[in-house]
Amino acid sequence: MNPAESLVLSTRERVQVTLAERSYDIIIGQGLLGDAGTWYGLPAAAHAMVVTNTTVAPLYAQALRSQLQAQYRQVHEVVLPDGEAHKDWATLNLIFDRLLAEGCDRKTVIFALGGGVVGDMAGFAAACYMRGVPFVQVPTTLLAQVDSSVGGKTAVNHPLGKNMIGAFYQPARVVCDLDSLNTLPDRELSAGLAEVIKYGPIADAPFLDWLESNMDGLRSRDPALLAHAIRRCCEIKAKVVGIDEREGGLRAILNFGHTFGHAIEAGMGYGVWLHGEAVAAGMVMAADLSERLGLAESGLTIRLARLIERAGLPVRGPALGAHDYLRHMRVDKKSEAGDIRFVLIDGLGSAVVRPAPDALVAACIEAHCA
Amino acid sequence: MNPAESLVLSTRERVQVTLAERSYDIIIGQGLLGDAGTWYGLPAAAHAMVVTNTTVAPLYAQALRSQLQAQYRQVHEVVLPDGEAHKDWATLNLIFDRLLAEGCDRKTVIFALGGGVVGDMAGFAAACYMRGVPFVQVPTTLLAQVDSSVGGKTAVNHPLGKNMIGAFYQPARVVCDLDSLNTLPDRELSAGLAEVIKYGPIADAPFLDWLESNMDGLRSRDPALLAHAIRRCCEIKAKVVGIDEREGGLRAILNFGHTFGHAIEAGMGYGVWLHGEAVAAGMVMAADLSERLGLAESGLTIRLARLIERAGLPVRGPALGAHDYLRHMRVDKKSEAGDIRFVLIDGLGSAVVRPAPDALVAACIEAHCA
Repeated sequence: MNPAESLVLSTRERVQVTLAERSYDIIIGQGLLGDAGTWYGLPAAAHAMVVTNTTVAPLYAQALRSQLQAQYRQVHEVVLPDGEAHKDWATLNLIFDRLLAEGCDRKTVIFALGGGVVGDMAGFAAACYMRGVPFVQVPTTLLAQVDSSVGGKTAVNHPLGKNMIGAFYQPARVVCDLDSLNTLPDRELSAGLAEVIKYGPIADAPFLDWLESNMDGLRSRDPALLAHAIRRCCEIKAKVVGIDEREGGLRAILNFGHTFGHAIEAGMGYGVWLHGEAVAAGMVMAADLSERLGLAESGLTIRLARLIERAGLPVRGPALGAHDYLRHMRVDKKSEAGDIRFVLIDGLGSAVVRPAPDALVAACIEAHCA
Repeated sequence: MNPAESLVLSTRERVQVTLAERSYDIIIGQGLLGDAGTWYGLPAAAHAMVVTNTTVAPLYAQALRSQLQAQYRQVHEVVLPDGEAHKDWATLNLIFDRLLAEGCDRKTVIFALGGGVVGDMAGFAAACYMRGVPFVQVPTTLLAQVDSSVGGKTAVNHPLGKNMIGAFYQPARVVCDLDSLNTLPDRELSAGLAEVIKYGPIADAPFLDWLESNMDGLRSRDPALLAHAIRRCCEIKAKVVGIDEREGGLRAILNFGHTFGHAIEAGMGYGVWLHGEAVAAGMVMAADLSERLGLAESGLTIRLARLIERAGLPVRGPALGAHDYLRHMRVDKKSEAGDIRFVLIDGLGSAVVRPAPDALVAACIEAHCA
């Protein structure tokens, strides 16, 4: 082993998601994509299908395919159009069409190479193709590495709601190659930082302090800082998902900022605001709502907004009007019998899920929209 | 309680499907649909959605809805076009559209009222809507009562293959009301008998004897005979599914006759032959293949064909040509790396799954096609 290889291996870390026979590892490190060791021990099959998009394919698909060719007789690739606007049934069907056209059987392993949209669609395709084939998440964005690739939530959007059609379906492995973040546009890096920041207020107050000390280094893509942040986020998410895989209770706290955020995404049209941007502005509103309900200590909203701003993210939502926000929030999946349920901060590092009076919610929206 | 009611209750039987936290009861009897006791203990929710079709809705939807109104605040109904030709994404989407338009939340209980197509689509919609809501199977055809409503297989067809997109998703309960068989056309009753007959050769030789003694009574819809047949089929299926929920091995034996049958359905165009009719002719070919491979005793094919004929079912497939049969069979879900895997009778009452030489398969096709 030459010194360069040993350096690569030394930075590799594992986080386990413990879900009985559906348990799996998240591998985090540099140089993972092109390292044969990354891909050992996956389910055997004749076919592998790499699902990626037009942006990621030219950057990383060849490297992944050459590794997979060592263990799968046929390695196929389907390249989807890029963006949240394409997270629909028509695009999903491109994956099914290709799987069937290539004669892929029900042992076929699907590899999701890309960001959250690719992961959600490839994962849902894996959940449904012949009633379920194995899949591997290879997230190439920060947002996907810290959040969407872990925990088995897969879905496509419906014209009447985001992520409305989907499945809980766990991957066989998650491979987070830090090198893939080098090609990520700044706007996407910031969007990922929104989900990183989220884990502080809901679960880990010291991590929020750490983020305040290291935000500049994270934005300049210091690999050691990114590795620490990704590992910590994955650890928290793995723990939450291990306790509540199907979001019967606890898992809903991971949606902090997402109820307001979904209203922004739906109200503006999917893809106009990035998911992370909408979540960022949504967290400010949710923090304020937590304060107004007397759950969070006074000052949380300002503190969080300052960090969100330093991450290069919006702290104010678009001026859709409180009525429209509320209308979109009522079709959120956390709603029950028409009651919107909010993730609220109940003391720093702890979250609760509960409804709130419309008037108070409207006040938060008015206070934090452009 | 008046004597009529006591008679109704005395004929009620339960078969349990044992799958840890996904266990559920199959209830078999007369007068179940209109009996409040049938619907006790289902998951609580604000919304119930009855999924049915244009044929079944006028017969039974009102009776079911009035029972459900006692425990769900809002009871909705979506009526799908009838038939296998509509078992596709477009029709599935009618269910999602309606669920979202009605503001159905993720506790909503879906009721599949109809035959196998309704059950497969409503079940798959339940598996995917907001990543999974509870559902109840209320099969109104013999085929659905003895086979498709039990065991959690849900799916829609893809232009390139039957049941290619779906999920393993267990119902909360299965309610088989024998009275609903009274309105079933003779052709549909016979199609259901194909799946009934199937259980004999694969799992229960004495049941095959019983069917030979009682086929005429079954075709004249003797309720006691139908109740016995349905219970026995459900018991066998529940046992197999309890051992192998996701068809990793044993469960595949339930597809006896289905590999040839799928080729008939695909080759003729979905819906031209009823599923049960295709399975009937398929079982004759599969029995012959079992004999030619020296697995089944000589005479099985003739014995089975005679019973199938007495059930009012075809014993010969359409003349598509062996080449086309083989082509369609290669995209069967049981295929692995291009090898077609057949369910074969290995001594009466026992089945195995294995590949077979193309030439032998072709000979069976030629021998049993019109």
